[in-house]
Amino acid sequence: MELKKVLEENINALSNIGNDPTGGLTRLLYSDSWLEAQKYVQKQLEQDGLTTSYDEVGNLFGSVTGAKYPEETIMTGSHIDTVVNGGTLDGQYGVISSYLAVRYLLEKYGKPLRSLEVISMAEEEGSRFPTAFWGSKNFVQLAQRSDVEDIADSEEIKFVDEMRRHGFDFRDENEPLRKDIRSFVEIHIEQGSVLENENLQIGVVNSIAGQRRYTITLKGEANHAGTTPMNYRKDAVYGFSKISSKMIDRAYEIGDPLVATFGKVEPKPNTVNVVAGEVSFTLDCRHTDSEALKAFGTEFEEEVNRVVKELGLEADIDLWMDEAPTPMDELVVSKIKDAAEEEEVSYKVMHSGAGHDSQVIAPFYPTAMLFVPSIGGISHSPAENTDLDDLVVGVKVLARTLFNLAYKE
Amino acid sequence: MELKKVLEENINALSNIGNDPTGGLTRLLYSDSWLEAQKYVQKQLEQDGLTTSYDEVGNLFGSVTGAKYPEETIMTGSHIDTVVNGGTLDGQYGVISSYLAVRYLLEKYGKPLRSLEVISMAEEEGSRFPTAFWGSKNFVQLAQRSDVEDIADSEEIKFVDEMRRHGFDFRDENEPLRKDIRSFVEIHIEQGSVLENENLQIGVVNSIAGQRRYTITLKGEANHAGTTPMNYRKDAVYGFSKISSKMIDRAYEIGDPLVATFGKVEPKPNTVNVVAGEVSFTLDCRHTDSEALKAFGTEFEEEVNRVVKELGLEADIDLWMDEAPTPMDELVVSKIKDAAEEEEVSYKVMHSGAGHDSQVIAPFYPTAMLFVPSIGGISHSPAENTDLDDLVVGVKVLARTLFNLAYKE
Repeated sequence: MELKKVLEENINALSNIGNDPTGGLTRLLYSDSWLEAQKYVQKQLEQDGLTTSYDEVGNLFGSVTGAKYPEETIMTGSHIDTVVNGGTLDGQYGVISSYLAVRYLLEKYGKPLRSLEVISMAEEEGSRFPTAFWGSKNFVQLAQRSDVEDIADSEEIKFVDEMRRHGFDFRDENEPLRKDIRSFVEIHIEQGSVLENENLQIGVVNSIAGQRRYTITLKGEANHAGTTPMNYRKDAVYGFSKISSKMIDRAYEIGDPLVATFGKVEPKPNTVNVVAGEVSFTLDCRHTDSEALKAFGTEFEEEVNRVVKELGLEADIDLWMDEAPTPMDELVVSKIKDAAEEEEVSYKVMHSGAGHDSQVIAPFYPTAMLFVPSIGGISHSPAENTDLDDLVVGVKVLARTLFNLAYKE
Repeated sequence: MELKKVLEENINALSNIGNDPTGGLTRLLYSDSWLEAQKYVQKQLEQDGLTTSYDEVGNLFGSVTGAKYPEETIMTGSHIDTVVNGGTLDGQYGVISSYLAVRYLLEKYGKPLRSLEVISMAEEEGSRFPTAFWGSKNFVQLAQRSDVEDIADSEEIKFVDEMRRHGFDFRDENEPLRKDIRSFVEIHIEQGSVLENENLQIGVVNSIAGQRRYTITLKGEANHAGTTPMNYRKDAVYGFSKISSKMIDRAYEIGDPLVATFGKVEPKPNTVNVVAGEVSFTLDCRHTDSEALKAFGTEFEEEVNRVVKELGLEADIDLWMDEAPTPMDELVVSKIKDAAEEEEVSYKVMHSGAGHDSQVIAPFYPTAMLFVPSIGGISHSPAENTDLDDLVVGVKVLARTLFNLAYKE
């Protein structure tokens, strides 16, 4: 198999399923293009003689039974859905790499000792319905019907109707967790520019950062910008500015791997000549250490309260996401490192600042990830890109990792 | 005339012309309700035997000739238009007070020595078309056709078409400035809460603050909030926060009468998990001293450039409004003070933080203003309000001022 050519063909083929007229890929859970993409992947899996099946919710599996330890499974895969107007690599590169790595190994080495299985997960991005990781959460028996029973997309189409439209349904919640899986390996684009800036080919991921997301609403008093002396004011934008500049200063002080972002800011009435009576804003902060993440969140909440008291405002603090950091499995991490060294590629061990299916799976099965570089760090955009040669290196290191896990004693 | 009753009736009558179903008054330049309101005022003026006329653009005048110095005119008035969903006092209280003050004087004292004239100005707020002070600017021969020739409202209705629809048109730009006007006095609601907080009935306005309005666009780099280490970032929101918190701190340091407001903030893409690549924001700063205003604006621009350099951003600085402070005429100010003392009401001499027709007129004719309190400082809202007794006091002090100017040697 000429890997570079086949990889390019597969990426192009999948990139034609779910094209958005406004740009990029928009392939959302349970849409027609979503099913078409899963069917394409299924065909590729069957071409290699893998046994394919869907679970109840629409995760697709393709497996080859191990020759010596059939009850031990090495699994690899990623998610098949995209964000709206997304790129052609996030998720689908991982799915394609997984089956091409398996194809490569079967062609070169024949049957593995352990069972090898590819998973193309139904949904990860949360881009259609207000729920994310539907694929991986069902795979590890975490997802609840109640999470999705009443939700709908932005056009008010109900989740449950869409799921059933293609013949899928809720899983049996009595079904126990699979016991055969010995490791899970996921390859993904970095979605940052560390590898690019440091001129490295592979990121060996040892941890997925935890994250907290807050929405803060500061309430002051809307007033005439001309006639209200400064001492009479309760300026919510001033409150926001003090809080956010202080906390970003602190993030720089505290240093990597802490990141903190005030991404969304919405004053009311948001007019040039009116002192803002209200501001709603978000904080997204992440760290690989849960104590450090909690400490930063606590410091932030204290700063909000301090500023609010100083300026005579009121604050509503809503911590609506609080995900723990997820360390990867040391053994699987070391297998990826070994593979990178055996392939003689440059790499570094690093954490993932973005969330992935692997963080859902890691508490249940030994899991690790590998990254390929993102050009300009861009993702979630039609401009998302990676050199084809780097993509090929990724598949090779993944294949070598799977070889080490499935073909060696 | 029972002033309180008549004042209330007139306010109620005008408040029924231009009611907005979504709340408050929306009586915009050259709309049908605008013409209806001018006609109502015209009827009131004619009821008192005043000679009424419109100029070409739609300013309404009502005059009584002086018995001894007919070639000297004392003028009083305000604007008849409102903002969208505005209150029932901003502008129209000044118009009503002007003709009721004249009515009161004519009834009590007969003909004045000097001519007395009421003006109901066509437009001041800039609330329909992207132009403001159309009434006063035409009155003092400042407005240019080119200011309005190509403009339209938000429904793409052209200014010029609307003006002509009611039979109005551009003034003759060769027409010279009137030479008969000896003073102009305008009464208005304070639109702030200084009078209310200090428990005073009248504000004697000695200056109208100058103002600068900026729109700044900071450009950084949009990035993934999770995968972009802090040192890689060009966070436009961080830039905004540093600049705005610093400059508001400085405004507090510098002190009254400086005011500074960052009222509008618009990050892009304005999403919780994306470092903002761009922020557009406004600064509105005002001062009664032009050097001080300029110094603050310069300091602000320097701070923008300093922060931009520090953070590796780019900035576009657009100073789109730069109006000089307008001192009021000392003599007219003293007449208003005398009147307040003669009426035995509590007052303070203060500046206006808001713009008014008087600032357009003051460079041409000796001008001053008086304020009545605003409850809660609220304006530009259906909640705009002043105690009726305070409104009555306003009319009386205005009348006494006009008496001092028009009835005494």
